[in-house]
Amino acid sequence: MMNSLTQKPYLIIFFLLISISSYTRAKTLKQNQPCKQIILYYHDILFNGTDLANATSAQITNETALSHHFGMMVVFDDPMTKDGRLLSPPVARAQGFYFYDRKNTYNAWFAYTLIFNSTDYKGTLNIMGADPLPEKTRDLSVVGGTGDFFMTRGIATFTTEEVQGDYYFRLKMDIKLYECYNHK
Amino acid sequence: MMNSLTQKPYLIIFFLLISISSYTRAKTLKQNQPCKQIILYYHDILFNGTDLANATSAQITNETALSHHFGMMVVFDDPMTKDGRLLSPPVARAQGFYFYDRKNTYNAWFAYTLIFNSTDYKGTLNIMGADPLPEKTRDLSVVGGTGDFFMTRGIATFTTEEVQGDYYFRLKMDIKLYECYNHK
Amino acid sequence: MMNSLTQKPYLIIFFLLISISSYTRAKTLKQNQPCKQIILYYHDILFNGTDLANATSAQITNETALSHHFGMMVVFDDPMTKDGRLLSPPVARAQGFYFYDRKNTYNAWFAYTLIFNSTDYKGTLNIMGADPLPEKTRDLSVVGGTGDFFMTRGIATFTTEEVQGDYYFRLKMDIKLYECYNHK
Repeated sequence: MMNSLTQKPYLIIFFLLISISSYTRAKTLKQNQPCKQIILYYHDILFNGTDLANATSAQITNETALSHHFGMMVVFDDPMTKDGRLLSPPVARAQGFYFYDRKNTYNAWFAYTLIFNSTDYKGTLNIMGADPLPEKTRDLSVVGGTGDFFMTRGIATFTTEEVQGDYYFRLKMDIKLYECYNHK
Repeated sequence: MMNSLTQKPYLIIFFLLISISSYTRAKTLKQNQPCKQIILYYHDILFNGTDLANATSAQITNETALSHHFGMMVVFDDPMTKDGRLLSPPVARAQGFYFYDRKNTYNAWFAYTLIFNSTDYKGTLNIMGADPLPEKTRDLSVVGGTGDFFMTRGIATFTTEEVQGDYYFRLKMDIKLYECYNHK
Repeated sequence: MMNSLTQKPYLIIFFLLISISSYTRAKTLKQNQPCKQIILYYHDILFNGTDLANATSAQITNETALSHHFGMMVVFDDPMTKDGRLLSPPVARAQGFYFYDRKNTYNAWFAYTLIFNSTDYKGTLNIMGADPLPEKTRDLSVVGGTGDFFMTRGIATFTTEEVQGDYYFRLKMDIKLYECYNHK
């Protein structure tokens, strides 16, 4: 009996060592098990020269001769809603820019901050990545966060929900965080 | 006595298991205990068309009709000093851009690199995020680093210290790193 | 003999505790031991107003009076090849932008996404940082990834391989990832 008592620790330590060493070499994160998930809808109303009251974004550079808006850059301060309706109360603002960067089809590139100031969340998420519009879903990187999202990282998956010419488009942003920190 | 000797390991292993499992589920980082903290002052002198010698930044797009400089983008190569005096010897350069992105107040958005090449530090910090000027302090994300800041992450807190119209402004940047790596 | 049996666990636990506590305080990553390394070549052919067929990038803002192209911004969709030959089959696209931001020499700043869609890799890497051209090698941050590069981080080291005026340049990008995740 004494023997079993003194040998059991080795077994436990053995498994501990295995789990620790595997952690430091190749960490495992399950894509379908984020530590937090937030689905929001992004509404972009591009200023057309007259609609000052409703516009939430404006073009700051002209497209080039390379076509498909290549080089056109837009700065935005867009409302984020919990459902797909433009007039729902915004739960966050998306502030940043996108531009088009492909000559044979529509491709965009985004960098922006989601600013939350609601009863649910206070803080920011910083996001960047490519948005190849022909793909049904596009993954961008959540590269950092502040406040309630202190030091977080994750993936933001874009799906286009509606496009009305150059004037309005709506994206579903499915934000999955895989690194969550207690910060208090 | 033998009994106590053989049982103690279980206690220690028990606490080890608790600490390891809590680490892998929700990591804890204390906001007031960064692994490194650096406070620097950012000086931006916007080129006004004549002051070529002193200017450290230049406007590259025009503001739009959405007001409050909405859409105005500025590229900068600004000195970073250890105190708030513009003429103190720079300990780093801040290279990147900002633009204004709000129509009813002044909001900016920054992405830039701090380049250190001093006896204290050699390497870079890459930073991005929103800068809502009406807030007293604003948190941006330190999303990566190189050299002495190899693979680091953290938070950069902005405080506006001085604004002289469009010509000069100074920000205090309180940089708190929460992931520090030995890399040698 | 019994004594040695009961004391060994303490030794092992002691080293475990040391390794765990050092991990949580200052993690160690070896710069010469990335968990993945990919070397690719970036080819940028700037649109000169006539070469629409070959151009892969276009200027969207004019340089300012601060010299050395200060403020000139370029949007690109550039091929990435496994060797330094422009006409080799691309294994990825680099989509994003760079601009020049220094008045006494050539310095650039990049933010872009590498989009892989080959038999080797599917997914993206998001990269940002300063590119001070006078340095032989420049380190930028890989701040996130998606798909096969789910949640990765690392360093991208630039080396200039060839420059043909403003028309063409080629960079070697040595991408070393230090955080790799199993995601399936």
